[in-house]
Amino acid sequence: VDKMSLKWLSLLLLLQLTCYFSSGRCGKVLVWPMEYSHWINMKIILEELVTRGHEVTVLKSSAAILVDPNKSPTIKFESFPASVSQEDYENFFQQLLTEWIQGAKHSFWTKITTAQNIFSELSDVSLKICKDAVLNKKLMTKLQESRFDVILADPIIPCAELVAEILNIPLVYSLRISPGYSIEKFSGKLPFPPSYVPVVMSEFNDHMTFTERVNNMLYVVFLDFWFQTFNEKKWNQFYSEALGKSCFLFVSHEDLTPGISLLQEMEEFVQSAGEHGIVLFTLGSMIRNMTEERANTIASAFAQIPQKVLWKYEGKKPDTLGPNTRLYKWIPQNDLLGHPQTKAFITHGGANGVYEAIYHGIPMVGLPLFGDQPDNIAHMTAKGAAVRLDLDTMSRTDLVNALKQVINNPFYKENVMRLSTIQHDQPVKPLDRAVFWIEFVMRHKGAKHLRPAAHDLTWYQYHSLDVIGFLLACVATAAFALTRGCLFCCRKLANARKKAKRQ
Amino acid sequence: VDKMSLKWLSLLLLLQLTCYFSSGRCGKVLVWPMEYSHWINMKIILEELVTRGHEVTVLKSSAAILVDPNKSPTIKFESFPASVSQEDYENFFQQLLTEWIQGAKHSFWTKITTAQNIFSELSDVSLKICKDAVLNKKLMTKLQESRFDVILADPIIPCAELVAEILNIPLVYSLRISPGYSIEKFSGKLPFPPSYVPVVMSEFNDHMTFTERVNNMLYVVFLDFWFQTFNEKKWNQFYSEALGKSCFLFVSHEDLTPGISLLQEMEEFVQSAGEHGIVLFTLGSMIRNMTEERANTIASAFAQIPQKVLWKYEGKKPDTLGPNTRLYKWIPQNDLLGHPQTKAFITHGGANGVYEAIYHGIPMVGLPLFGDQPDNIAHMTAKGAAVRLDLDTMSRTDLVNALKQVINNPFYKENVMRLSTIQHDQPVKPLDRAVFWIEFVMRHKGAKHLRPAAHDLTWYQYHSLDVIGFLLACVATAAFALTRGCLFCCRKLANARKKAKRQ
Repeated sequence: VDKMSLKWLSLLLLLQLTCYFSSGRCGKVLVWPMEYSHWINMKIILEELVTRGHEVTVLKSSAAILVDPNKSPTIKFESFPASVSQEDYENFFQQLLTEWIQGAKHSFWTKITTAQNIFSELSDVSLKICKDAVLNKKLMTKLQESRFDVILADPIIPCAELVAEILNIPLVYSLRISPGYSIEKFSGKLPFPPSYVPVVMSEFNDHMTFTERVNNMLYVVFLDFWFQTFNEKKWNQFYSEALGKSCFLFVSHEDLTPGISLLQEMEEFVQSAGEHGIVLFTLGSMIRNMTEERANTIASAFAQIPQKVLWKYEGKKPDTLGPNTRLYKWIPQNDLLGHPQTKAFITHGGANGVYEAIYHGIPMVGLPLFGDQPDNIAHMTAKGAAVRLDLDTMSRTDLVNALKQVINNPFYKENVMRLSTIQHDQPVKPLDRAVFWIEFVMRHKGAKHLRPAAHDLTWYQYHSLDVIGFLLACVATAAFALTRGCLFCCRKLANARKKAKRQ
Repeated sequence: VDKMSLKWLSLLLLLQLTCYFSSGRCGKVLVWPMEYSHWINMKIILEELVTRGHEVTVLKSSAAILVDPNKSPTIKFESFPASVSQEDYENFFQQLLTEWIQGAKHSFWTKITTAQNIFSELSDVSLKICKDAVLNKKLMTKLQESRFDVILADPIIPCAELVAEILNIPLVYSLRISPGYSIEKFSGKLPFPPSYVPVVMSEFNDHMTFTERVNNMLYVVFLDFWFQTFNEKKWNQFYSEALGKSCFLFVSHEDLTPGISLLQEMEEFVQSAGEHGIVLFTLGSMIRNMTEERANTIASAFAQIPQKVLWKYEGKKPDTLGPNTRLYKWIPQNDLLGHPQTKAFITHGGANGVYEAIYHGIPMVGLPLFGDQPDNIAHMTAKGAAVRLDLDTMSRTDLVNALKQVINNPFYKENVMRLSTIQHDQPVKPLDRAVFWIEFVMRHKGAKHLRPAAHDLTWYQYHSLDVIGFLLACVATAAFALTRGCLFCCRKLANARKKAKRQ
């Protein structure tokens, strides 16, 4: 045995011990993944679970994209053949994206109808892949024999509940937010009074005018109706009472460590910016391209500012690109946001980017496209931490002015720093908290005591409509009886008088 | 400088450093205390704050009882003369107690009416003492000059909000539960759907039958109405918008360290019990006495069991007292519950005792008297961790059988052990969590971002009644217009036909 192996052996032992101490014993975690930013979020938790000695297995269809799965050699992947090709699957997402970005430009009703169509399409593809897994006897037998302790999933697409039911293991959801908050409302049974909780995609905040509250109420009624239809039609035969053992993890702050591993070329470019610092521009993990005209407008705006600009962009190099701007196919976004040279962040408003910017205290220029992005940017604007522009219609001057504002006006920096201070100030690090509750569900084989009793009520019982109806019926009966009684008495009295008169 | 002083100096430095590291700087905490078990709870948090280097000052009226204030030499007391004597104040509480225990024996309506009277009386006395403090110019000037960072209070009695407003400092509430959950509902703006959240003193749990839900709804309507009357009438001139800066700490688990410091005599008695172990019997910090007849019944029951019994009792020694039972004026309840010899706990069901019993996994016999005690015991009975008896009517045999059940039937031990496991399994110790949020409020000078926007809505806005009314009016107008339009068309058509016929 050489020295190196001994080192590895002791490291492995240490990992094993970490797990034994923190949770009693090491667990086996099965994962039903979602794509793009949802997968990026999930992976952070999975890697931490592996670090603590748990065995993590991701169920991966042959169509799955799973950005950078090779970068996590510690996570196991259990593959199964899908009836959809990976190319079709990826094209499907890119098409969805185009559709959604188009739809997101219009009124709430167009947005929500587009979202409905998109989720309906996503539902169909997901159902195919779900069937590919669940009806794959060999796979299911292998999973059954592996005796997992818990299944971790993103509730944005169904299937994990069914797998949990078949394998008879508890289920933990990791979710940022769902369209129309339907999942939190119906599966998590969280109360959402529409008077101060704005609907997703409404772009309202918690202080609404009367008109906004009227709209919010209409949205709620529509979404409540819409979600149920969507859910029941497509998955009825695949759904059962599987939600009984579920537990929710809400991702609302991320756990981030300041970046240190910048690529050398990037680092030199960033340092060359001097006192003016740098601006970072990305549009997330899904967007790869934009029209040439837009790219030129943006590039010409960048050419006018004293900062150096790092732009994540895979399209054709714009003609107007200035010497202060460099294009990259990929950038370490969180590392760069944590860099002391960074002055501003131009973002599409994806939740991860926004949380990273808040964490590092970087003011934002928001160019929201679809999904929760307009909401996220609306909230940042309300907090005074961002300026919002429209990617399609903004002029060169608009972008230059917005950048000057967030960089030079201390208002934005102060506001985002206040948010940053609050985000840092938590009793437990969010990643530790996520891992704690996953381990908790493994330890206690579920978390039934955390389930609100609302799950066991019908909708009319939940809203006490039967009780209110009964009480109103009682009042009505009493009123009726009283009136009849009075009338009866009056008549008797009248008869008595008549008789008296006659006599 | 001798060695001892150096040791103390370094210890002090260490404490100072603890505080600097955990919260940035040391803070000054002002406390508006409540009596009995509420004070016992509060003191645990105060002592921890002192340990972490904060300066804690308790506002203490000359009437204040504050059980064992001398045992906390590290907490400062700022005294002020009260217009009530301590004797009158203590008698007032004892009288309240008798009244409440009597009332608690009857229906919900009697219970709640009694509670209303009691809170109304408590409100009057508290108002007197509040005026004694607030109108004491010398005291208020001194407090103003002391520049406190935060005021900590129990919201069960008002006044702290006013002091916070005058001193212009943020307020933190520490609360277990309020009568009719009014404080959480109205000041904390927590949603409480009456379909599965039972009202305090209802003794229902979260799974209610239709009849129970009807009753619960009636209670809610009554309590909502009742609480507002109580609050507005008595404190109007003392209340302002002071609640704006508040933050809630809900005490629902206690942080307990296993007891080690048993008195030697007690320890010998406990050890002499051998394999049968011991039974612990206390009725809390307020009850001191019971009728001779009841005491004799209880003592004769104890004489029949093989366990040794430790009984906290200040009354006359019962004639039927067996050799296996000893009376004590005071017992270290938590230490004894943590003793490996302890087999069962006979309790009035106060929240502290119940949480301590859960923590140490000791099954209970509940003899609830008043306040939240019947609820606490109802929940323990529903979880299979306790047997409930009535102190006034139980026979010797009832008590003997109940004790035999919880000691010999593994059902009770298993259930309470499951609760214990869950209670121990938390990401942060409850005491650390309480201290964290108090320090958080000091650091950020309030916690406005944690305030639900519901605070800025009127009651009809909160329930969206204006929006619903408006939408119904729209529907009605549309229906009316449509009907009128149809009628108009019909008439036109009829007229046209008539004309056609005539021609």
